[in-house]
Amino acid sequence: MTTTRKKIVIVGASAAGLRCACRVKRLQPGWSVTVVEANEVFSYGACGMPYVLSGDIEELGALRRTPYGVDRDEAYFTAVKGVEVLAPWAATGVDVAGRTLAIAGPGGNRLVEWDELVIATGAAPRRLPGLPEHDRVRTFHVWDDVKPLKLGLMRGEIGSVAVIGAGLVGCEVAEAFASLWGADVTLVEAAATPLPEILDRELGAVVAKHLESQGVRLMTGCPVERVAITDDGAAVLAGGAEITVDVVVVAVGVRPRVELARAAGLELGPTGAIRVDDRLATTAPHIWAAGDCAEVRHAVTGGPAFLPLGSLANRQGRALGTVLAGGEASFGPVAGAAAVKVFDLNIAAVGSTAARLRGGGTTVGSVWISAEDRAHYWPEAKLALLGMVYDPASRRVLGVQGVGEGAEVAKRIDVAAQLILRSATVEDFVDIEHAYAPPYAPALDPLTVLACAAQNALDGVEGVSPLADLGTATVLDVRVDDERGERPVEAGRLVEIEVGELRNRADELPDGPLLVVCAHGTRSAEVVRWLSGRGVEARYLGGGMSWRARAV
Amino acid sequence: MTTTRKKIVIVGASAAGLRCACRVKRLQPGWSVTVVEANEVFSYGACGMPYVLSGDIEELGALRRTPYGVDRDEAYFTAVKGVEVLAPWAATGVDVAGRTLAIAGPGGNRLVEWDELVIATGAAPRRLPGLPEHDRVRTFHVWDDVKPLKLGLMRGEIGSVAVIGAGLVGCEVAEAFASLWGADVTLVEAAATPLPEILDRELGAVVAKHLESQGVRLMTGCPVERVAITDDGAAVLAGGAEITVDVVVVAVGVRPRVELARAAGLELGPTGAIRVDDRLATTAPHIWAAGDCAEVRHAVTGGPAFLPLGSLANRQGRALGTVLAGGEASFGPVAGAAAVKVFDLNIAAVGSTAARLRGGGTTVGSVWISAEDRAHYWPEAKLALLGMVYDPASRRVLGVQGVGEGAEVAKRIDVAAQLILRSATVEDFVDIEHAYAPPYAPALDPLTVLACAAQNALDGVEGVSPLADLGTATVLDVRVDDERGERPVEAGRLVEIEVGELRNRADELPDGPLLVVCAHGTRSAEVVRWLSGRGVEARYLGGGMSWRARAV
Repeated sequence: MTTTRKKIVIVGASAAGLRCACRVKRLQPGWSVTVVEANEVFSYGACGMPYVLSGDIEELGALRRTPYGVDRDEAYFTAVKGVEVLAPWAATGVDVAGRTLAIAGPGGNRLVEWDELVIATGAAPRRLPGLPEHDRVRTFHVWDDVKPLKLGLMRGEIGSVAVIGAGLVGCEVAEAFASLWGADVTLVEAAATPLPEILDRELGAVVAKHLESQGVRLMTGCPVERVAITDDGAAVLAGGAEITVDVVVVAVGVRPRVELARAAGLELGPTGAIRVDDRLATTAPHIWAAGDCAEVRHAVTGGPAFLPLGSLANRQGRALGTVLAGGEASFGPVAGAAAVKVFDLNIAAVGSTAARLRGGGTTVGSVWISAEDRAHYWPEAKLALLGMVYDPASRRVLGVQGVGEGAEVAKRIDVAAQLILRSATVEDFVDIEHAYAPPYAPALDPLTVLACAAQNALDGVEGVSPLADLGTATVLDVRVDDERGERPVEAGRLVEIEVGELRNRADELPDGPLLVVCAHGTRSAEVVRWLSGRGVEARYLGGGMSWRARAV
Repeated sequence: MTTTRKKIVIVGASAAGLRCACRVKRLQPGWSVTVVEANEVFSYGACGMPYVLSGDIEELGALRRTPYGVDRDEAYFTAVKGVEVLAPWAATGVDVAGRTLAIAGPGGNRLVEWDELVIATGAAPRRLPGLPEHDRVRTFHVWDDVKPLKLGLMRGEIGSVAVIGAGLVGCEVAEAFASLWGADVTLVEAAATPLPEILDRELGAVVAKHLESQGVRLMTGCPVERVAITDDGAAVLAGGAEITVDVVVVAVGVRPRVELARAAGLELGPTGAIRVDDRLATTAPHIWAAGDCAEVRHAVTGGPAFLPLGSLANRQGRALGTVLAGGEASFGPVAGAAAVKVFDLNIAAVGSTAARLRGGGTTVGSVWISAEDRAHYWPEAKLALLGMVYDPASRRVLGVQGVGEGAEVAKRIDVAAQLILRSATVEDFVDIEHAYAPPYAPALDPLTVLACAAQNALDGVEGVSPLADLGTATVLDVRVDDERGERPVEAGRLVEIEVGELRNRADELPDGPLLVVCAHGTRSAEVVRWLSGRGVEARYLGGGMSWRARAV
């Protein structure tokens, strides 16, 4: 590594900026590393904020402490990391040629010299046009956003809330208000189902039904038309209905904070985030970018993407630190793995949704399965609903999405991420090796079962959407009596022959086309194959009645 | 696919044989598929048997039922799968040229004709030479092994047990006897630590300490010298001590059941299992093998391996079914992912152990970390202890092992399996993308942190084994006071300077070589790098005191 002493200046003391700073300083202890941060409090686990609001985490300060109980403040970074943090100091301008950064803070205005400059300015909440500036209309993005809401709940001043946007943050915040505090929560989403960025509507419908079962009033397909402040609250007009609440939380996503980058003349990408190469270099010499403000390359589309995820910011920061210190590192394509807990549902996804790919003109196939997440006889086995999106031509897997009552969903998505990053096919997913024991997994990994469903579909054994209209279909229900009692199937015409009797009662089969249903979508797929061998046209209900019961 | 009608005969109705049978029949419904099985009860989840013994699963029959409550017996396979199962019928001989199988059963002796023959005879418990044949000396491998032991426990006839072999089954059985029933359990193992097939001793020591904390008497490094039946029990002589117990369970692993294959003249591999190619063809025409009786190729060593794992048997069966039906499938190298629950510890591993590789003459490096398995501020975060084995020359990761109080260990091993199967390097592990949210994972995946430790080691920042002798070392303890109180460090000479004070108190540092300790092995690694920049020779305690407290 190079031994020329350098002065590194980093704007932004969140995950990417601080990881980068500490990494440079570790590898090059003789260098000067300064981080400029506009806020007084920094280096906290912002992803934990919804759980402070809910009370799962007792105290906001916990998010800012090391595992051994020390606050990560300026003194910590100086003493432990040898990194200088200037906070609260705002970066106000960059002189690219002169290699200086203008900053403003408690001590007035200053110029800071740098040899290498890192922009790690993160993201800011997106705003909806026309919203009133008022205490009753809030965002939930930074440290200071938590306390007013929590105090309002504790004092009983907030009894009702409208959360605008059912994305990752919106769903978490809705749960936080409702679960411990029992607030009256309305969640308003413009798309047809919650979490549209990561879930297709077959999975989103499961989240929707669960939110409603937890007492959240969900308004989907409802862009917000107006928010007005009234004498005793805030009135939200959406989908033709007006509701009045104590507070409105706007959670319609974030945008990259690129004001400083733009002022410095850095090129932005098509997503609006800062364009960087694999070494996180911007288009200006000696200026770099990392974290939410920087664009990434998406492994599925191959194109640029804006993926403001804490996990990526951490890895980018470390990689950039290595590069700046003179080492070998790069930051490659990302698959967009994400997870979120919504009440008792565990939700995770990776890759692209079918909806987004189809919107971009790509032809994709989708399959859905219900599966136990452990051996089915294991007492703690829980149902996982998994969907796969694939390219029928190349057989490449483009996305995997999961919703489950057990936490095992995130495990499957982590495994899927590795395969999707490596352009894996449906067959590669069939071959997944996993650590099997009854308390941890079934003998065949649910991802293998999911990939088998995709193989079947490519082979002509097709499932229909768990949300399909059955009211006009001729449905063949192959479940046993007990299962039918739990969840009867609606149908245009209904024929009930359990799978073990089919071969003997084949003469009772109605003419096709048939829609075959079972509990998880496994037996019914087998029956479809068997029927097609007998020349009967049939498809099966993807994910079976287990999925449908949770979605419709 | 081919449409010539074929007669497929399969010997063995466990996972591999039945998966194969059902797959062939699904793809080729017109073919005849017969499975010959020596036992009356078959197609049950044998991996669940320890939990029936313990009472976690109430009833043995649950292991044999479908998720919708139907017994998987002959009638089930005929009616639902169209597969004929002959049970109990033993295969007694193969005429390779004449393509017949001789079987013996309730109806006398018969010859069964086949076009393709599948050997799926599984594995049998290994026996220790010289053990008495007696009801007090048992194995735990098949359905019939469970009831006598459970009845003995329920009737109070079994109050003490010696389990010989602390492998996967031995540990599970030891827990089953001790946890619910409170039996007095002695676990005898020839190797230095439990689970030597999958865990190096740094991790095995954690399992050992946990077993002992649960009341199991553990005798490691103790090959069994003799078992004798006495008037009132069985006497086990091991490691110079004799213990008398009500029953002895021998769990010293399994061997492939290859009697039929050998009689048919099939070639066996160096492991003693049946040699097969990637399509699971044996060395004889039209004879195939799958499941525990067949040899696999190991992804790490590239050589043959005997890995009797239910997950592999299931996948092999399906792949072979596709091949036999005329489709495209193969069964590639395996990484040997395995998992086991031992009381409150979750254990999983993949790849090779350092001990095995070193035993084979390979130079490898090892690193160890302690890490929270969720965001550290998440109330349910649990500690995971992870070890990585790597090749210092190629930087390839050869194995990952984990022990944790939370179930997240298996998740990391599943991810590691995908990378190891693809010959991933330490750098590939650093780049792992994961689905992050505080309830599921920390912002940096523990596998990333583990790989960073390996990078550090390759870079000269080295950790010593968590089991290292500290009694003669000069130890620099960089923890804060609270942490020191929880677990004081033994040392030849002890210097305590918490990490935040080091830069100011550098003049108090003793001369090297130093052994730096912290809680998880993270801060101490940083300090080693800092010290080496000042010319002070130092290493750190791998996994920190968190690991040591659980292992020593």
